[in-house]
Amino acid sequence: MSRPAHRRPEYHKINKDLFVLTYGALVAQLCKDYEKDEDVNKYLDNMGYGIGTRLVEDFLARSCVRRCHSYSEITDIIAQVAFKMYLGITPSVICNNSSRNEFSLILDKNPLVEFVEELPAGRSSLCYCNLLCGIIRGALEMVHLAADVTFLQDRLKGDSVTEIGITFLKKQDEKKHRRKK
Amino acid sequence: MSRPAHRRPEYHKINKDLFVLTYGALVAQLCKDYEKDEDVNKYLDNMGYGIGTRLVEDFLARSCVRRCHSYSEITDIIAQVAFKMYLGITPSVICNNSSRNEFSLILDKNPLVEFVEELPAGRSSLCYCNLLCGIIRGALEMVHLAADVTFLQDRLKGDSVTEIGITFLKKQDEKKHRRKK
Repeated sequence: MSRPAHRRPEYHKINKDLFVLTYGALVAQLCKDYEKDEDVNKYLDNMGYGIGTRLVEDFLARSCVRRCHSYSEITDIIAQVAFKMYLGITPSVICNNSSRNEFSLILDKNPLVEFVEELPAGRSSLCYCNLLCGIIRGALEMVHLAADVTFLQDRLKGDSVTEIGITFLKKQDEKKHRRKK
Repeated sequence: MSRPAHRRPEYHKINKDLFVLTYGALVAQLCKDYEKDEDVNKYLDNMGYGIGTRLVEDFLARSCVRRCHSYSEITDIIAQVAFKMYLGITPSVICNNSSRNEFSLILDKNPLVEFVEELPAGRSSLCYCNLLCGIIRGALEMVHLAADVTFLQDRLKGDSVTEIGITFLKKQDEKKHRRKK
C-alpha cells in the first residue's frame, strides 16, 4: 500500500465534510477497539505520524515555502499554510517561552469536531483530534525537526479554546558538537 | 456525537490528501480488526451508509439541486455535483438497462486510491472504496430512494476502470398501489 513514486503532485480541493465524517467514523472504530482512552490517543497519534511523514513531501512541493530560519517561522508556516491547506482554518500562534522553542496553535474553530457535540460517554480523556498532533510531529520529523506535539486545551473537554502545544526539542548532537568547539 | 441543529452550513474547501491518507488508515485498521474481506467490505458499507445519511442534508442545501424527475437525472447529479464536490472528480454515467433503473458510474481516476499501489497481501476480495457505495446508498435512502450500490469493476483488482453500479429498487408499495388502480 505504498505510494507510487511517479505520482505527479496535483492540487485538488474538496468539500471537507466527507473527511470530517470519515474521521469521526475512524475515531468511533478505535473507541470500539480500545477500551482505554490513552490507547486510542496513542493510536491516533501514531496513525497521524505516518500520515504526516507522507504528507510533508507534497506539502513542500505545493506550498513552495522557503527555508525557515527559526522555530517561530516554522510554526507560522504550519498555522498559516498547512492548516489552511488541509483543514481550511488558520490558527493563531503564541510563543510560550523566552528560548522560543515552545509554541501554541490556538484554534478558535475546529472543523474536525463540527459534527461532534460532545465526547462519547465514558471517554472523558479522549483526545478526539489527536491525529493532528501525530501529523505535525511526523511532518516535522521528515524535515529533521524533533518535536513534542500535544493538546493543551480542548473545547470538547470544556476548555474555552482548542490549543495544540508544539515544543521543538533541541538536538543532543548539536549541543555536544557545540560543546566540543 | 450528534450534530448540533444550529450549525450553519458553510462551504469549506480543503486539499484532499489528508482525507485520502486518513481513509487509508481507516481501511488498514479495519483489515487489522476483521479477518475476512467480506466483513471489512460490509463494515465500510455500513459506515458509509451512516455518513451518507448525514451528508445528504448539507449536500442538498449547498448544491441547490432541483427536484429530479428520473433515476437518470439523479445519477447525473451524483456524478456531476456530489462526486465533484466531495472527491473533486466527475465520473461518467452509463445506463445499463432499458427500464432505466440500472446505472454505472465510471471512474477514470479515483482519488481515494492515489496513495495505494495495490491491495494489501491476502486481501484480494477487499472493496477498498466500499465506503463510497454505502454513502450513496445512505444519501439516496434519505430522499426516499432505495438502491443497491456495489463495485462492479475496480482498478485495484486489475480491471481497466473502476465502476460503481447503482440499481434503483422499485418500491413494493408503489407497485401494489398501481396494481390496485
